[in-house]
Amino acid sequence: MIERIEPRVLRGFRDYLPLEMIPRQRMIQTIVEVFESYGFVPLQTPALEYADVLLGKYGADAEKLLYRFQDNGGRDVCLRYDLTVPLARVAAQYQNLPRPIKRYQIAPVWRAEKPGRGRYREFFQCDIDIVGSASLLADAECVAVDAAVMRALGVPEARVRINNRKVLNGLAVLLDVGEEARMHHVFRTIDKLPSAGEAAVRAMLRDECALDDAAIGRVFDFLGARGSNEEVIAALRATFAGVDVALEGLDELQAVLDAAVHMGVPCDTMEVDVAIARGLDYYTGTVFETFITDLPGFGSVMSGGRYDTLITRFLGRDMPAVGISVGVDRLFAAMGELGLVEGAHSTAQVLVAMLDKDSVPYAMEVATALRGARLRVELFLYDGERVKKQFQYAAQRGIPMVAVVGSSERESRTVTVKDMDSGSQWTVSLQQAGQEIDDRLSLQRRQ
Amino acid sequence: MIERIEPRVLRGFRDYLPLEMIPRQRMIQTIVEVFESYGFVPLQTPALEYADVLLGKYGADAEKLLYRFQDNGGRDVCLRYDLTVPLARVAAQYQNLPRPIKRYQIAPVWRAEKPGRGRYREFFQCDIDIVGSASLLADAECVAVDAAVMRALGVPEARVRINNRKVLNGLAVLLDVGEEARMHHVFRTIDKLPSAGEAAVRAMLRDECALDDAAIGRVFDFLGARGSNEEVIAALRATFAGVDVALEGLDELQAVLDAAVHMGVPCDTMEVDVAIARGLDYYTGTVFETFITDLPGFGSVMSGGRYDTLITRFLGRDMPAVGISVGVDRLFAAMGELGLVEGAHSTAQVLVAMLDKDSVPYAMEVATALRGARLRVELFLYDGERVKKQFQYAAQRGIPMVAVVGSSERESRTVTVKDMDSGSQWTVSLQQAGQEIDDRLSLQRRQ
Repeated sequence: MIERIEPRVLRGFRDYLPLEMIPRQRMIQTIVEVFESYGFVPLQTPALEYADVLLGKYGADAEKLLYRFQDNGGRDVCLRYDLTVPLARVAAQYQNLPRPIKRYQIAPVWRAEKPGRGRYREFFQCDIDIVGSASLLADAECVAVDAAVMRALGVPEARVRINNRKVLNGLAVLLDVGEEARMHHVFRTIDKLPSAGEAAVRAMLRDECALDDAAIGRVFDFLGARGSNEEVIAALRATFAGVDVALEGLDELQAVLDAAVHMGVPCDTMEVDVAIARGLDYYTGTVFETFITDLPGFGSVMSGGRYDTLITRFLGRDMPAVGISVGVDRLFAAMGELGLVEGAHSTAQVLVAMLDKDSVPYAMEVATALRGARLRVELFLYDGERVKKQFQYAAQRGIPMVAVVGSSERESRTVTVKDMDSGSQWTVSLQQAGQEIDDRLSLQRRQ
Repeated sequence: MIERIEPRVLRGFRDYLPLEMIPRQRMIQTIVEVFESYGFVPLQTPALEYADVLLGKYGADAEKLLYRFQDNGGRDVCLRYDLTVPLARVAAQYQNLPRPIKRYQIAPVWRAEKPGRGRYREFFQCDIDIVGSASLLADAECVAVDAAVMRALGVPEARVRINNRKVLNGLAVLLDVGEEARMHHVFRTIDKLPSAGEAAVRAMLRDECALDDAAIGRVFDFLGARGSNEEVIAALRATFAGVDVALEGLDELQAVLDAAVHMGVPCDTMEVDVAIARGLDYYTGTVFETFITDLPGFGSVMSGGRYDTLITRFLGRDMPAVGISVGVDRLFAAMGELGLVEGAHSTAQVLVAMLDKDSVPYAMEVATALRGARLRVELFLYDGERVKKQFQYAAQRGIPMVAVVGSSERESRTVTVKDMDSGSQWTVSLQQAGQEIDDRLSLQRRQ
């Protein structure tokens, strides 16, 4: 006797059953259509990378979360942590790829996070990136795609909170933070403000980043900048008078906002927010996050930024790049909370049912014919079940039409069609059945 | 100075760049449409599983190839080896999922194989399975889906070689092989015939499976059965007179062939082949593989079978199941060899180009308007490039239309459209541009 194995998934991992997977796949399809409508093309990288490809890019906090192990050949490998660093590798490896590379990729990433509400160890990212263009039009296009995705998904209102790392670099200059590693540590700490709260961030800035009280006060003065985008930018220009890097960041911020408006992003859905730092070290310019207005506290569902030096690590010379990452699973959860997800057990349009065993071959023929009319057809896998049970099967799964066949249909080469919604039923020739069902389904959709 | 990291992928892994990824994605989309046309729905499982979920299911040869490691929490985990065992876990874990579960899943699997031509350590599988139906209609439906996929992809001729494990079990009875582990070892050895050749298989049967010369002779007599399906089945009925399990297998084989014909699979594309054993231990009934006629020696591109006891290992009771697995990457390679793959650098239909910096805002507006007409539109990320370079950009990527704007278009709110194929160009109002371009593209497609 073989021992039974407990069927279970690892903590922080999950199965997507059809009820959720069907609408989730529709959501992803909608996102892909938006990406392609902006000229992005698909590209795919492996799940596993050499460890040195991923290490030293994300920062210390992130690196602890890598799934890292020795493969059967003793190689030091990691499961990918995001889709950006693998893309940076690709951009350096295939130098004859025409630039800019505008690619999208939808794939799982793995992070050994402490699992929690909405936080998983495996989750899907859905990224676009533009590699090889320093134009701020590329940054603005990312913001425009972000807004277009939200619109296409029917999210009633979302706001993009936008900043520029150069403004934060200016802050580091004012604080006299010095070396880059310490500067990134300060940025990562600021980035924790929404989750950790002000008191904790103050403590971390003091204890971990070794800032004195005056410097911490300056950080919070800076983070407190409020008002319209124009007011905030004007105030920051005053704060950073003489700090060239920050002024450059503010110019870029203004240019991206202006271009995004020309690309159709409503002005009042973009908000300059200097507290947006992004937790990863590789960002160098524009950074932004997207929040759904009706779900305050849900966190960012889409975020991105410019990373002009990441590819340098592989290429040895500069290659500008900017992109966004959609947190597919978090966005799907958000859409669920907004009531925008309609679960479904089936995508079939017709179930072919049969009254008796002798009708099975004709039922198969009917199913084939209906598929020929481009319908999605499920053949009931008959094993003596009564027709009532077959109707229940259709009802349970929300299949809208049932095509029933018995001896009379078989002899006359007809099909009896039942509309599960209205309960009405009628008999039609096999030849016309596909068209009839299709018409009826279009009518239902229009109602 | 930070050291440059060599951009590279692990051996046996690979990147799919857009040129290949665009047609590959189209192929997968076609396959999914076929799956859905038969009522299969998507389901998704994690890449990582507890090791005990995967171990002891595939057989000794396969198990050596698992990517197995300890995660950060010290758990013994494996990357999935196929999509079937995770589905078996799902079927046992969620007992209130309506049966039969007809699901598809498209996802990478990982096997630490020796990499070779067409053999990778990460590759995509695209599976359908029917869980919870013992009906042979389910087996036949898998064969029918297999044939429908080949047809939908335009593969000129493919053959399904089909067998039943119960016939092989009958052979084991005749050979008096005894215990199940040894029987599976014999089957796995037989399965190596096409790759290893007869001499090697004879040696393995003698040395590893401890069969004597008479038994090995019987194996090869059995494998030598040739003729029409009817002839082969009749000959096997004689060979296995009195061996009930084999006769049951032959009845099932006949029933599946008959049902598949009713489902529209041409009779002469299915071939009874007793050498089809399948390398994995979990099969219990129907087994089959699919070969493309024009590519002899390419190997099976799609294969499957019935596995009625696999879920038992998780559930503690029987749960019949049957399925097929499409080797996406191998099939894509095969289609490439058949000339059925058309590479593409872009899926955009229009490039919006601009004559000068002052036209950039209007160009953005044009791009937005064309997207509103449901076109896929790439905005040239202008940074002072001459229009000639922008035309080259479109030509390089095969974007069929270019919408150019300069000061005169801006003032008159028009667009000058260039058809890259014919070279003709004309000016149209912004309002009508989308419809005009769409019409022109439909015309091109029809030609």
